[in-house]
Amino acid sequence: MKRFLILAVTMLSGYSFGQIVADEGMWLYTNPPLKQLEEKYGFKPSQEWLDHLQKSSIRFGNGGSASFVSPNGLVMTNHHVGVSTLQRMSTPERDLVEQGYYAKTLEDELKCPGIELNVLQEIRDVTEQIKAAVKSGLVGDAAEQARRAVIAKIESAANTETGMKCEVATFFNGGLYHLYCYKKYTDVRLVFAPEDQVGFFGGDPDNFEYPRYCLDVSFFRAYENDKPAETPNSLKFSENGAIENELVVVSGHPGRTDRFKTIAELKFYRDMQYPYTMEKVFRREVTLKALAETSAENQRRTQTEIFRWTNTRKVRLGVLTALQDESLLSRKVAEETELRAKITKARLLNVREPSPWLQIERALKQWEEILYPYDLLEAGEGFHTPLFGYARQIVRVYEESQKPNEKRLRGYNETALPTIRESLEAVSPLYENIEIAKLSDSLTLFTEKLGADDPLVKQILTGKSPQNRASELIKGTKLFDAEKRLKLYDAALKGTLETDDPMIRLALLVDKRSRELRNIMETRVEEPRRQAYAKIADARFKLFGTTVYPDATFTLRFTFGKVEGVADPDGTQYPPFTKMGGTFTHGEEHHFVMPYTLPETWMKARGQISAETPMNMISTNDTIGGNSGSPMVNQAGEIVGILFDGNRLAHSRSFVYDDTYIRAVSVCSTAIIEGLRSIYHTERLLEELGQKQENTK
Amino acid sequence: MKRFLILAVTMLSGYSFGQIVADEGMWLYTNPPLKQLEEKYGFKPSQEWLDHLQKSSIRFGNGGSASFVSPNGLVMTNHHVGVSTLQRMSTPERDLVEQGYYAKTLEDELKCPGIELNVLQEIRDVTEQIKAAVKSGLVGDAAEQARRAVIAKIESAANTETGMKCEVATFFNGGLYHLYCYKKYTDVRLVFAPEDQVGFFGGDPDNFEYPRYCLDVSFFRAYENDKPAETPNSLKFSENGAIENELVVVSGHPGRTDRFKTIAELKFYRDMQYPYTMEKVFRREVTLKALAETSAENQRRTQTEIFRWTNTRKVRLGVLTALQDESLLSRKVAEETELRAKITKARLLNVREPSPWLQIERALKQWEEILYPYDLLEAGEGFHTPLFGYARQIVRVYEESQKPNEKRLRGYNETALPTIRESLEAVSPLYENIEIAKLSDSLTLFTEKLGADDPLVKQILTGKSPQNRASELIKGTKLFDAEKRLKLYDAALKGTLETDDPMIRLALLVDKRSRELRNIMETRVEEPRRQAYAKIADARFKLFGTTVYPDATFTLRFTFGKVEGVADPDGTQYPPFTKMGGTFTHGEEHHFVMPYTLPETWMKARGQISAETPMNMISTNDTIGGNSGSPMVNQAGEIVGILFDGNRLAHSRSFVYDDTYIRAVSVCSTAIIEGLRSIYHTERLLEELGQKQENTK
Repeated sequence: MKRFLILAVTMLSGYSFGQIVADEGMWLYTNPPLKQLEEKYGFKPSQEWLDHLQKSSIRFGNGGSASFVSPNGLVMTNHHVGVSTLQRMSTPERDLVEQGYYAKTLEDELKCPGIELNVLQEIRDVTEQIKAAVKSGLVGDAAEQARRAVIAKIESAANTETGMKCEVATFFNGGLYHLYCYKKYTDVRLVFAPEDQVGFFGGDPDNFEYPRYCLDVSFFRAYENDKPAETPNSLKFSENGAIENELVVVSGHPGRTDRFKTIAELKFYRDMQYPYTMEKVFRREVTLKALAETSAENQRRTQTEIFRWTNTRKVRLGVLTALQDESLLSRKVAEETELRAKITKARLLNVREPSPWLQIERALKQWEEILYPYDLLEAGEGFHTPLFGYARQIVRVYEESQKPNEKRLRGYNETALPTIRESLEAVSPLYENIEIAKLSDSLTLFTEKLGADDPLVKQILTGKSPQNRASELIKGTKLFDAEKRLKLYDAALKGTLETDDPMIRLALLVDKRSRELRNIMETRVEEPRRQAYAKIADARFKLFGTTVYPDATFTLRFTFGKVEGVADPDGTQYPPFTKMGGTFTHGEEHHFVMPYTLPETWMKARGQISAETPMNMISTNDTIGGNSGSPMVNQAGEIVGILFDGNRLAHSRSFVYDDTYIRAVSVCSTAIIEGLRSIYHTERLLEELGQKQENTK
Repeated sequence: MKRFLILAVTMLSGYSFGQIVADEGMWLYTNPPLKQLEEKYGFKPSQEWLDHLQKSSIRFGNGGSASFVSPNGLVMTNHHVGVSTLQRMSTPERDLVEQGYYAKTLEDELKCPGIELNVLQEIRDVTEQIKAAVKSGLVGDAAEQARRAVIAKIESAANTETGMKCEVATFFNGGLYHLYCYKKYTDVRLVFAPEDQVGFFGGDPDNFEYPRYCLDVSFFRAYENDKPAETPNSLKFSENGAIENELVVVSGHPGRTDRFKTIAELKFYRDMQYPYTMEKVFRREVTLKALAETSAENQRRTQTEIFRWTNTRKVRLGVLTALQDESLLSRKVAEETELRAKITKARLLNVREPSPWLQIERALKQWEEILYPYDLLEAGEGFHTPLFGYARQIVRVYEESQKPNEKRLRGYNETALPTIRESLEAVSPLYENIEIAKLSDSLTLFTEKLGADDPLVKQILTGKSPQNRASELIKGTKLFDAEKRLKLYDAALKGTLETDDPMIRLALLVDKRSRELRNIMETRVEEPRRQAYAKIADARFKLFGTTVYPDATFTLRFTFGKVEGVADPDGTQYPPFTKMGGTFTHGEEHHFVMPYTLPETWMKARGQISAETPMNMISTNDTIGGNSGSPMVNQAGEIVGILFDGNRLAHSRSFVYDDTYIRAVSVCSTAIIEGLRSIYHTERLLEELGQKQENTK
């Protein structure tokens, strides 16, 4: 733990707000860091080079990144990005998570339910159009409605025009709006996945650690019209992988950062939001692990969701810890003070209006007031089961589809409806006992936070304990059945909702209060906050121009860095690469006891593989959660790795970049090829990746 | 989960406040339920019978029960009651928890650090003396001081007079005060313990379930002057164990119930205290399990503490669930209404004073205001490591020993000091990594709850993150070393406290605010609450006389019931006994995978044991946590079992007794003997228990 100590002091030196240092930045493709690349690495990528990388990059489902690695729609992502899909496709007889999978022929490729791939094709700046529609002076509900209307109009028009999935992306908290048009793939099939035990070797203890030994990779394929999709933009594997100090570019979808949030907002996260989130995360981990312990089958049913919560716990606790570190936060205070002084000096703000920082503080006070009820009701966290999510979607489609497109809630306009229907169509095996446990726990939390004497709580519990009520709801609902869901959806779209399904009744019961809370959130929290941040962003543009990048928003970003070892704060040095042979040694050190067991395929192949092959590597790229599965390429645009993690202190990157002790962690391309060749013998796949099938070393 | 549903309705029928039904009651030995025993079971125990059972019953350490089972100081308790001691005595080379232990000779008996046994010898009613000292009209600090002074005087005088450990015990929240004089044993040695895997067979999943298969028993021995203690009051084993429908008496130390708390107080638990407790329990379980997963050694270091938290989680969540069940709570509301009406009708309260229910509500408002800071600072939960506990004790001894005896804080008068010194002397192996993890977590919680901008929080964290600060404190303190602790204690007792130990500095730093909080708790919460409850208790005495029993307070109680099967709310019937052979079948059903593995000794002996031997049994006795390890005897006063658990719905017994679906769970005496004979071959121990060494069946 000592390592944190020195970090806190060291990482703050020589960093000043508005000046981008080292390899910092999650850059938009419309504003790539050409100057830095040239000055620091002597690299001048052409526009074609950038376009090719952009169009080879994939947004995978609701939380990961991926890339095309053959012209025939072959998709590479992390094993842990695809694992919840494998879980959904598994049965007690065929556990794709534990056993992995390889499709020997095209016919063997397994159709995956509920995955959507998005590939960014076109970007248009629509900032002026949106700002013009939201007339200055409009506040609260009116501004929000005006913006929603113009966004729906832009998206809908672009949708029709391009035939693609078009979304308005917001940057700088409203300082910049881009229209992103994605090519969408919904027929996705499984080609290859290793066993979970090597995809996630070392489990929770090794997660966010380095040195590391994971083959965290899976292959899927995008299909169109029941045939492999043609994907001319795809990335080739490099012949020899990366070398130390080489420039590497990561192209992916970082989920969220808070680097340009105000101090008031960071303190709100520190004091209110993160503690509350942690409370939920801790209890969910406990609830699922307790259930998993009762039998091997329950273990199978819960394992990917347990991974999700242990992973989230590490991430969130890491950020909270960084926020509670006064030596870090005081640095951010100094940055804000400096920025405000510069803005004041340059007279960039209208001094007759309340300062945007004060506006944000006021919005946060509103947020604080509705933090729990908003999250539990409108965000659905009090009813923590996908079955409630289905019910909510059906109820909202019923209500929203009766309104004109531009007046609907965000997420319910015509563009969005097909995605909603697909999410209801996707078959995910849900289990009664798991859903009862999850709903019991979340209803208990709901009752704790809103109070057992709250009239709505009483209406929801109907005089029963949260456990009894959860059991009744789960056992009573028909929404386990995709066909029944679609039937309800189709009827709802036509303006009918006649059902006594208890989960639908619940969604209807809470809808009024949920919508009220959403309205408060949108008009009194988000809208004034957005406007205030837009003002700060405008001022910052004027001061720093395009030398700044926006916070991550799960949109495509370009990051660069070099392959480089790292030192612990206590002085221990770690090399840039681990080796494949080290995987076995690491397992041995832990007596091959879970989570340090290795699959039989690996144990058998120990003598066959080239032990010196680089396994995992670290680099200075500026990445964060959501980047998982991102391709990492060299200057030739060839795959040298696939990003899957950050090391232990990386969580502070949520609000500040530093490369003293922090690195991104990737699977080396060499390990992927050597694994496919010498362990899994996947001839068809190797050929498609342009690789020799024999190890010639 | 369905079983909960019907229970909520059924368990409420036919129960009226003040009327004791069925086998309800945790009775004082000064007021045993003679009438019920005679009427229901035709049993009239003599005073000698009662005295013998009382003096054979043991309060074990800080949370369990036990009994003498030979005249030579042989002590029987649950394995899970002694397991934290076994953990402390274990090393990586000799894991007493995993491997168990048997002392073949007297010389092999292993000295156990830090256990104290208390055996209740004398009871005196001191209610009048205490009430007289706390003059009517005294409030807050004055009343509390007066009571503390008279209690200290009574204890100290009795201590001198009897040479025993004398404590004033409070019943009915201050309606009744008894002086309890205990014979104390501090030289306690380990005689026999089974492997944890059979002591806690089925682990967390089976905990609080039935049917059940645990050999949850261990034997210790009390020593005096380095020789086995002479204990003429001890219990013999029954020859054949219990039979169905037989009357059984359990004599032990139930920890806490809230059956006579007001509705306002139950709601305070439901809405404030239990949710907060659960928050701590969830995070502690997660923190320790995450550490345990990193290596076998960390698993060993944390396992008994993990057991503690998983067990606490089940208990507390069970109570919270029952409290959140409106159908249960509304029954308590009706009881309170009925009681208040009867009291009003009988004019038992001074109507010119605020009603005691209102006084309690006011006290609870005060409690709510200091709930977090009191718990985190004064109760030490923000510094969740025994090392802080040591530091706090040394600091408090330093401060309190300079005051006259009767003016000291509760727990620091002359009677208590030897126990404090012994607790500092006891060698418990503490591990740097475990204590850092626990302190990190609790300092994080502390920072969340008090706010990172709180001046005291800032002083404590010294500008570092909770993790860094925890690491610094744990690595810096010398309190791991018992000798150094005692040196500091002895100096403190002489009025000196010169040290730069960071943990002692921390205890000093927080002491002022901690004491302020304690003062608020004692004078504005506890004192008015105590006075109000005493008024209600007085009125209830006048209405119902000795037909009521006081809430549990970890003092010796007498409970009765019968051995009887149980039905689930869904109709499934469970027999009163499980069988030893069923242990293997149960393991098989779970593929002998953890926590359903059985130790080698058992697997080997499978063919040798008598499979039909009763293993665990259930009965209607009114028991709760703290009763673990209590002897269960028949009418002849012979051991037929040892209590270790309640079944799934038993947690609601915290505030209401019911026997429809609820049972106490015990290890059968027959299984203990058969295990010692056919599995462990413990000749010496069997002989001392008066048992044949050969199975004659």
